Amino acid sequence: MEYDGDFAEAGSRNRLRGTPVQYPCGKAMAKKRNGKAKKNIWKRRSKPGDAPGTLVVDPNASPTLIRVIGFGGSDIIEKEIKDLQELRSLIATTPRLWVDIVGLGSDATLREIASLLQLHPLAMEDVVNVYQRAKVEDFDHTLFVIARMIDGNDAGLTEQLSFFLKSNVLVTFQERHGDCWDPLRQRIRQRRGKVAEADLDYLLYSMIDAVIDSYFPVIEHIVEQVDALEADIIEEVRNEQMHRIHELRGQLLAVRRAIRPHREMVNELVRDTIPSIRPETRVHLRDCYDHVIQVIDTVDTYRELTSDLRDFYLSSVSNSMNEVMKLLTIISTIFIPLSFIAGVYGMNFSDESPWNMPELKWEYGYIFSLALMGLVASVLLVYFRRRRWI
Amino acid sequence: MEYDGDFAEAGSRNRLRGTPVQYPCGKAMAKKRNGKAKKNIWKRRSKPGDAPGTLVVDPNASPTLIRVIGFGGSDIIEKEIKDLQELRSLIATTPRLWVDIVGLGSDATLREIASLLQLHPLAMEDVVNVYQRAKVEDFDHTLFVIARMIDGNDAGLTEQLSFFLKSNVLVTFQERHGDCWDPLRQRIRQRRGKVAEADLDYLLYSMIDAVIDSYFPVIEHIVEQVDALEADIIEEVRNEQMHRIHELRGQLLAVRRAIRPHREMVNELVRDTIPSIRPETRVHLRDCYDHVIQVIDTVDTYRELTSDLRDFYLSSVSNSMNEVMKLLTIISTIFIPLSFIAGVYGMNFSDESPWNMPELKWEYGYIFSLALMGLVASVLLVYFRRRRWI
Amino acid sequence: MEYDGDFAEAGSRNRLRGTPVQYPCGKAMAKKRNGKAKKNIWKRRSKPGDAPGTLVVDPNASPTLIRVIGFGGSDIIEKEIKDLQELRSLIATTPRLWVDIVGLGSDATLREIASLLQLHPLAMEDVVNVYQRAKVEDFDHTLFVIARMIDGNDAGLTEQLSFFLKSNVLVTFQERHGDCWDPLRQRIRQRRGKVAEADLDYLLYSMIDAVIDSYFPVIEHIVEQVDALEADIIEEVRNEQMHRIHELRGQLLAVRRAIRPHREMVNELVRDTIPSIRPETRVHLRDCYDHVIQVIDTVDTYRELTSDLRDFYLSSVSNSMNEVMKLLTIISTIFIPLSFIAGVYGMNFSDESPWNMPELKWEYGYIFSLALMGLVASVLLVYFRRRRWI
Amino acid sequence: MEYDGDFAEAGSRNRLRGTPVQYPCGKAMAKKRNGKAKKNIWKRRSKPGDAPGTLVVDPNASPTLIRVIGFGGSDIIEKEIKDLQELRSLIATTPRLWVDIVGLGSDATLREIASLLQLHPLAMEDVVNVYQRAKVEDFDHTLFVIARMIDGNDAGLTEQLSFFLKSNVLVTFQERHGDCWDPLRQRIRQRRGKVAEADLDYLLYSMIDAVIDSYFPVIEHIVEQVDALEADIIEEVRNEQMHRIHELRGQLLAVRRAIRPHREMVNELVRDTIPSIRPETRVHLRDCYDHVIQVIDTVDTYRELTSDLRDFYLSSVSNSMNEVMKLLTIISTIFIPLSFIAGVYGMNFSDESPWNMPELKWEYGYIFSLALMGLVASVLLVYFRRRRWI
Amino acid sequence: MEYDGDFAEAGSRNRLRGTPVQYPCGKAMAKKRNGKAKKNIWKRRSKPGDAPGTLVVDPNASPTLIRVIGFGGSDIIEKEIKDLQELRSLIATTPRLWVDIVGLGSDATLREIASLLQLHPLAMEDVVNVYQRAKVEDFDHTLFVIARMIDGNDAGLTEQLSFFLKSNVLVTFQERHGDCWDPLRQRIRQRRGKVAEADLDYLLYSMIDAVIDSYFPVIEHIVEQVDALEADIIEEVRNEQMHRIHELRGQLLAVRRAIRPHREMVNELVRDTIPSIRPETRVHLRDCYDHVIQVIDTVDTYRELTSDLRDFYLSSVSNSMNEVMKLLTIISTIFIPLSFIAGVYGMNFSDESPWNMPELKWEYGYIFSLALMGLVASVLLVYFRRRRWI
Repeated sequence: MEYDGDFAEAGSRNRLRGTPVQYPCGKAMAKKRNGKAKKNIWKRRSKPGDAPGTLVVDPNASPTLIRVIGFGGSDIIEKEIKDLQELRSLIATTPRLWVDIVGLGSDATLREIASLLQLHPLAMEDVVNVYQRAKVEDFDHTLFVIARMIDGNDAGLTEQLSFFLKSNVLVTFQERHGDCWDPLRQRIRQRRGKVAEADLDYLLYSMIDAVIDSYFPVIEHIVEQVDALEADIIEEVRNEQMHRIHELRGQLLAVRRAIRPHREMVNELVRDTIPSIRPETRVHLRDCYDHVIQVIDTVDTYRELTSDLRDFYLSSVSNSMNEVMKLLTIISTIFIPLSFIAGVYGMNFSDESPWNMPELKWEYGYIFSLALMGLVASVLLVYFRRRRWI
Repeated sequence: MEYDGDFAEAGSRNRLRGTPVQYPCGKAMAKKRNGKAKKNIWKRRSKPGDAPGTLVVDPNASPTLIRVIGFGGSDIIEKEIKDLQELRSLIATTPRLWVDIVGLGSDATLREIASLLQLHPLAMEDVVNVYQRAKVEDFDHTLFVIARMIDGNDAGLTEQLSFFLKSNVLVTFQERHGDCWDPLRQRIRQRRGKVAEADLDYLLYSMIDAVIDSYFPVIEHIVEQVDALEADIIEEVRNEQMHRIHELRGQLLAVRRAIRPHREMVNELVRDTIPSIRPETRVHLRDCYDHVIQVIDTVDTYRELTSDLRDFYLSSVSNSMNEVMKLLTIISTIFIPLSFIAGVYGMNFSDESPWNMPELKWEYGYIFSLALMGLVASVLLVYFRRRRWI
Repeated sequence: MEYDGDFAEAGSRNRLRGTPVQYPCGKAMAKKRNGKAKKNIWKRRSKPGDAPGTLVVDPNASPTLIRVIGFGGSDIIEKEIKDLQELRSLIATTPRLWVDIVGLGSDATLREIASLLQLHPLAMEDVVNVYQRAKVEDFDHTLFVIARMIDGNDAGLTEQLSFFLKSNVLVTFQERHGDCWDPLRQRIRQRRGKVAEADLDYLLYSMIDAVIDSYFPVIEHIVEQVDALEADIIEEVRNEQMHRIHELRGQLLAVRRAIRPHREMVNELVRDTIPSIRPETRVHLRDCYDHVIQVIDTVDTYRELTSDLRDFYLSSVSNSMNEVMKLLTIISTIFIPLSFIAGVYGMNFSDESPWNMPELKWEYGYIFSLALMGLVASVLLVYFRRRRWI
Repeated sequence: MEYDGDFAEAGSRNRLRGTPVQYPCGKAMAKKRNGKAKKNIWKRRSKPGDAPGTLVVDPNASPTLIRVIGFGGSDIIEKEIKDLQELRSLIATTPRLWVDIVGLGSDATLREIASLLQLHPLAMEDVVNVYQRAKVEDFDHTLFVIARMIDGNDAGLTEQLSFFLKSNVLVTFQERHGDCWDPLRQRIRQRRGKVAEADLDYLLYSMIDAVIDSYFPVIEHIVEQVDALEADIIEEVRNEQMHRIHELRGQLLAVRRAIRPHREMVNELVRDTIPSIRPETRVHLRDCYDHVIQVIDTVDTYRELTSDLRDFYLSSVSNSMNEVMKLLTIISTIFIPLSFIAGVYGMNFSDESPWNMPELKWEYGYIFSLALMGLVASVLLVYFRRRRWI
Repeated sequence: MEYDGDFAEAGSRNRLRGTPVQYPCGKAMAKKRNGKAKKNIWKRRSKPGDAPGTLVVDPNASPTLIRVIGFGGSDIIEKEIKDLQELRSLIATTPRLWVDIVGLGSDATLREIASLLQLHPLAMEDVVNVYQRAKVEDFDHTLFVIARMIDGNDAGLTEQLSFFLKSNVLVTFQERHGDCWDPLRQRIRQRRGKVAEADLDYLLYSMIDAVIDSYFPVIEHIVEQVDALEADIIEEVRNEQMHRIHELRGQLLAVRRAIRPHREMVNELVRDTIPSIRPETRVHLRDCYDHVIQVIDTVDTYRELTSDLRDFYLSSVSNSMNEVMKLLTIISTIFIPLSFIAGVYGMNFSDESPWNMPELKWEYGYIFSLALMGLVASVLLVYFRRRRWI
């Protein structure tokens, strides 16, 4: 088996990986996955020393689209907004309005929205710098929340979602098209469930809940892979397994890094210091908090488990190697003295002197030599067996 | 010894494992153990975006049975309930009623019970999603508790138990038939002990105490195995021992993960913020808290001990391997120069030239060559002995 | 050196261990050490579901003896109690009474004592289940303390001591005969020191202090062994040293597990929430707290140090093995080409063809071949030396 | 590949390292980097026992230059100060004055400044001892802040920046020329942005923000290198990679050590106990706090990731080595028995006895011997293949 | 290179260690270093069960000397006290008195001092048991402080310093002659600086500050050694380096253990609960606290760094060894098939049969055999090169 080929053996690895996880948020998410955007490392587009609150838009971001859903009154309004004046009048007339802004690429539009809705410049800076940790901030009359939705196909890839909640408007900013909220939209349209009736803080809770829930299938998928890998290692040790362990550990690390700040975030929403969240919604957020804890708990347990698994793998590899080396060395060790005997009787000492190699002239000299070799081999074999080496 | 066969050698492993633990809750528990349900990973049946509080029942769950024990009045009522109207009237007339619901498979029945007893939808969602961590929640007049009972035969398998305590009713939900509470039932029936006399919070405490106590035999069993394994490793190092260490560490991790949330859970019950728990019951819960700490403490200590044991094992394996390799290499090293000498005198240089291999023509040439070999071997042996390699 | 024999070489290990620690509490303690009771794992004699507070006595425990020391009045009363009525009258008449109960084997006697002194059933359950962690509990007018005394000859073995302090009576329960308190008894008898004069809380403090002090010689003994082992490893690496490291780490773990709960226990006594402890005694307990911290600190430092030591040992073993393997492999590597040359000139090509092995017919062919061998060996030696392998 | 040459192979390493990070604070910073000042270890110039507050200037420090920017009034004053009297009058007349002191080498000047501005001696001692951790101290009416700016070209090198904020004066001390604040200066000059209008606490915040931001490109650079290294290790294992991992871990450790105290520092500024910081500035500082957390979070994640990477590397090296050794040993093992057979038929037993080596006289003896060798080789090959060793 | 000799090669190790650290407290400290008193393990001279506060003096301690410095009045009094009556009168008459007691060997004198100055027996017990951790205790009107000064020449050796501060007297107890306070004495004598003017709490602060500062040169020395060792390992791997790493880690552990309790100690002094410390002194103590944190921080960072360094060392050793083994094994592997070919043509099959070894009779048989060998060697070499093994 060649080393260089280990990681190229996609076949055997794919067998382990099985089919891709059935991601509940579906095709949209899968489609928008960008093969190159692999790491969530903060890249600040504004330069050190720039005025805080400077809005520097990523030139590669998707163009901005605005969709609104107005509800709570007699009609459900659902439309795409082109002209911000229309948005202004909707805000004035609709009891509850969800402004869903997708794509952070249109500099001017974003500025206009910010000024129309009076969103704090520092918050807007965080909205377009899409590498924030999950957090809650309360600017006077506006609740600002950041959450990160995980990509079902790549545990290392998350999408930043920003929320502004103020009186009758909930604004959401998404990096890319496709989200987890279609069931929510459906329920609003059909005036079904509490989402359609309750205040906007309940809608906010429902969205965050959906985001947290998006972690579960990813975790489950990793967990299944770890379990499959463990069974695989116990069955037979192979080189590429270490690569898989490393990969899975990296994924768990990425998930933990993404989910961990949500604990503080949700916890802050549960505490009764934020006026925009009503007590009856807090009960639900507490449930959401339990889910966050559950994800973190599972990730931590599985980090530890993969660490144990790695130790087990390494020990198994070492055992396996030891077996090989031991057997081969034993074979060599047995034959080396035998070859030596053969070598002795291959010496060309002159047969004129009676002292020189008399065995060669014995009638049964050859048989004697073979017997000697057999004896040496047997003694060694018995000794090795006694030492339990074979 | 073949590598592939290590883990198949069930015989030697079973010797270590000894007989299965004598699980105090007995046969019922052992029977309901499902060979496939191995991991406690949360699988959410509801989809992200579903309305919170949606009751999605596991299609494989057992059908729901309702048994009640009413006591505290002149009669002890114990029966199985088929018609929920009967339950309603029992609630109205019995001083203290324990409603024991076993099996979470009957969708309609569960809904009816929830509505009859006014159980919070979010709590009911947790009841049927049987992968919750232990926790306490206090919904207005209802105390909601989740605990996890461990399976005596598989440290990785736990069963979720949910409790609702409201005025004169204690509702318990169990995943499967068979539990640890038969002694409690017996005491109620025989009007013996405090359980039969005190309020329902004492019954709740007694149940939680029994659940916590169910961890002790499991821990003891693991501890015994670790100690046996340690003695075994000290006696003789074998390949499959690493597998055992890995297995035991996995079990300890599983137990820790299951028990740890109970600390906060019991601690919350001990604090005097929950009105349903009377101060005299708190004293007992404090005792229960000590037991939780003791389990966690033992698990942590034994995680650390197995970690040390693993290091010791690896070092022993390495020492053992080194001994083998060293001896074998020494044998080779001694014979290689000897074979070389034999090889030299096996060369066919023409004996016409007096300069060519005169030793061959010496009278004692052969003896000289053997003496030379003996000398080389002795020098090497003495040198190796001096270096303390043999 | 044989592997199997490593741990049997008691001689060299005992040299390391030196003489057994001079345990200050003396012979009694050493005597009561039970060779089989090796681990402090909690074994609950009561079954899950049993009524809390059930007193299930260990059938192997020693029978119960009661000794009292009454003091503070004009006379010092010291006697063994057979009849509990006598104890009742002593309680009524003696200003300060220490009731020392040794051995937890007499079911009936323990029940009578508990009822006579009104000890809480949960506390009594802890008293007979001798695997409790150190703790303090305050039941109304009774202070209940559990501490663990370490055995000077086996760091893994501790004895549970339980204390009840109520108005004029201090009750102590010991598992076995022999304790650390003879100096205290002596001082009371001779009316010497504060113990004889001050209230019973000072006596309680003095007892706890003696228990904590019992850890010091044990720790010192372990520390000396670690230091000796370190020096030994630096001098020469041997296989059995890893076993020693493992053993010492296990001892440190056992001591830490035993001592750690004392920190909280003593700390709780220092805080001014417990009415039975007078402020002037708190000053002394603070000193006791310092000692607990010191033990924990030393144990933690030495756990870390042994961890470093293990790494150093493994690296030394590996270096030592590498040296051996390298030298042996070098010897082989030098002789293999030489043997090859000898082999070539040992080939039997017909000397009829002038192209076949003309060297054999050269006058100085043999000397040429030896020179060739010498050259090859020299080149290899020079090369290895350059690479600094030899 | 030679070991000694690994670290000299600058070429391959540089390929990994890529081009130096584009450090936003630019050339000045790069220029002032001192090749020898590599470690941030505290070297106290004052001796133990010296009076606290003793100003002992580093003899190698740059001479002190004073530049002021006065703003907030009708004119923007920007000049270099030679005479401290001029500074005194500027303080009296300018609404907001930024006194920027660069270079800590002029003993007398520093003393004069300290006395003129009434800076606390202990604070001044910290200013010239440039190995302080980031911190905040509030001396009566003066806010004293220390921050550390990281060098974009050497993660191990940081520069201490000290700030004093008192009523209308902000004093900054820099170790060397070149800083991150040119954009700030530009905005003040052009009366652009909040910096030019708001109070000095906003300017202080802007400076700290720029310092924190200086960590991002450094982190990003390290992160890119770790990712590149990971890809490189997966592709092919080479010796020098371990050196790179070690180097990167060292850099991450250095960054963490430098940034970590900033968390407490900024957090203290956010809390409302410091009167010099106005509430509206606190909102911005909260944003700054998020950035600090983000840096620490990334560093911690990448420390863990490099730790995993190291394990993966070591396992890969070991696998790679095992493959080599196994193949080579297998070759030897196959040929050793064959050579033995050849050796046997090379023995010189006298052909006079019919018992001596009759095979030699067989017609097909040679072919028989070759066949025997082929058979032995085949059996071994089949066996090795079965064991999956080849 | 011989293994046994590694640690004896003092020469190369000393080269690394360089010259001993220039310890600022100078010769006195160096002189009093006792080669045997190596570990700071608590040895309690009093036995468990002894009355608390029992003064058991170490029989090997130096005899007690008393020196006083009285100041604050018109004259500076500095003398050695022989008669304690003289001390009593000095206390009564001197505004500020520093009683410096050196050597803890004179039982009677210490008792007299304790009774004269009314020092608490528990505190005095701590003074003579010189293995205390740094701490603060406040007995009514006496502030009791313990600190540990580090020995500049042996990081594992510290000296306990005890302080009592009560109204106009500061008592210090030192284990041995020689301390860090000569500059303080000088300043008092010359009535220079705040020490000579301020209250005794400032003198106490100055002393503690000097003690903390005594750690810096020791840390710097260790840090330099770690850095030198790192450079050395990168340059060339040698066996004794692991010993050095182990040694340095042990030193860092010892320093951390000594310094860590100072954090709590100084922190307690900074808090405003201790009446004997004036607010203006607290500002200075805060500075002192920063220094403690800095020492701990550096020690922790360097513990982590040496841990990384150890991993790097082990990996380098392993790489280096692998290189050796690989090359040597390759040489063997190439020659073994060649020797086999030579062996085949050395067989003595009868040349009567035309089937027996016809090659021997070929005209170019020898050249053919050499060519065959050359071919085999080339194929192997090419193959190894392809696999990048050579």
